[in-house]
Amino acid sequence: MDHIVKSYEEELRRLRELIARMGGLAERQVADCAYALVRRDAEMAGEVVGRDAPIDALEREVDSFCVRLLALRQPMASDLRFIVAALKISQDIERIGDYARNVAKRAIIVSGQPFMGGVNGFQWLAQLVQRNLKDSIDAFVRDDADLAERVWAADAPVDDIYTGIFREMLTHMMEDPRNITACTHMLFIAKNFERIGDHATNIAETVHYAVRGAVLPEDRPKADISAEVPPYLGPTA
Amino acid sequence: MDHIVKSYEEELRRLRELIARMGGLAERQVADCAYALVRRDAEMAGEVVGRDAPIDALEREVDSFCVRLLALRQPMASDLRFIVAALKISQDIERIGDYARNVAKRAIIVSGQPFMGGVNGFQWLAQLVQRNLKDSIDAFVRDDADLAERVWAADAPVDDIYTGIFREMLTHMMEDPRNITACTHMLFIAKNFERIGDHATNIAETVHYAVRGAVLPEDRPKADISAEVPPYLGPTA
Repeated sequence: MDHIVKSYEEELRRLRELIARMGGLAERQVADCAYALVRRDAEMAGEVVGRDAPIDALEREVDSFCVRLLALRQPMASDLRFIVAALKISQDIERIGDYARNVAKRAIIVSGQPFMGGVNGFQWLAQLVQRNLKDSIDAFVRDDADLAERVWAADAPVDDIYTGIFREMLTHMMEDPRNITACTHMLFIAKNFERIGDHATNIAETVHYAVRGAVLPEDRPKADISAEVPPYLGPTA
Repeated sequence: MDHIVKSYEEELRRLRELIARMGGLAERQVADCAYALVRRDAEMAGEVVGRDAPIDALEREVDSFCVRLLALRQPMASDLRFIVAALKISQDIERIGDYARNVAKRAIIVSGQPFMGGVNGFQWLAQLVQRNLKDSIDAFVRDDADLAERVWAADAPVDDIYTGIFREMLTHMMEDPRNITACTHMLFIAKNFERIGDHATNIAETVHYAVRGAVLPEDRPKADISAEVPPYLGPTA
């Protein structure tokens, strides 16, 4: 991996490209694990599992490239924030890749099981977090703080869909114990998509900071409601 | 927050202290959410939920302190790696705080439900990930790459205990649908502890890189087996 870079500008552009590529791979992983889940396609799920390593490798490349830039170019102000942002964002993308791989592993298992529910919810959930991920990466690549701010405020529907799936799965489990294994996997899959959405939001926050030099407020228009759903569906329901 | 720093050495020491404090808060959160869960202590769980904000605030402080150090001191070699490591580790600790808060939220719910199983497993799981977290932070504070490497290789038992809890909960759910709500929370709680362990491992990897300047091999002695358990316990079992 010998990067022939001619100028500092080119190096910064290359860093942007590395993050864009990493983000692109992660987007594809998220799209494909959702597709594999909904279509019960174990083969495609297996491919997703096998395609996580390149994302991890890119994280290492971004890290060492950033350290090199910091050492050799001693960047200031917005360039410095940009490089620090790249370090943080690569960590978020790597986790997103992990979650997609975990979804794919579970998709392989549920593809062989009789029960399959909540397909629409999962498609919608996957699409929303995918869009947030794409927008947050685009915001980074284009220095677009406004887009980042929109992503940051955008995940309320993600939580709603997640909650809907959670309720649906719990009722299926209660109706027939034979659904429990598959439903448990589906619950973890939904949680994984929700976490992917969380990381997209983190990326958006980081982009906003990198571009504007100021952090967003601590409280987003978001609540971690997943922990609060089940009482309605509990033994007393 | 006016930090009166007299020298570069002092600034680096201060960064070490910030991470140590952040790690200490997270350790306490992990310990207390586990205690609250096992003792069915909703009050303590509520305190854990309320104590997450200071960890988030410390992450911001670490970030801006690191950016300031990078801008003003233009560090090289091991100092540069140390500062980049602090940036990454603060992100991991922040996530650990999120997971502990989520455990605490769920602990509040399950404290009011009749079913309570797997207590030993949870205690053991919490203790193990807590120790890995403590050791990984200690490794950072003391530049101890050997300790970091031990943590990195240490989480095989975490996976085993997690798998045991997973099996136990699935059987409880299958035996009596009234257990489903509580067991679902318990499964997510176990998953949260496992993720806390993952982040402790990440921290250890980062410390190793910071001290030695070389990354650990890609494959750890670890497998994400949680996705592969249920078939044994499925409808055909």
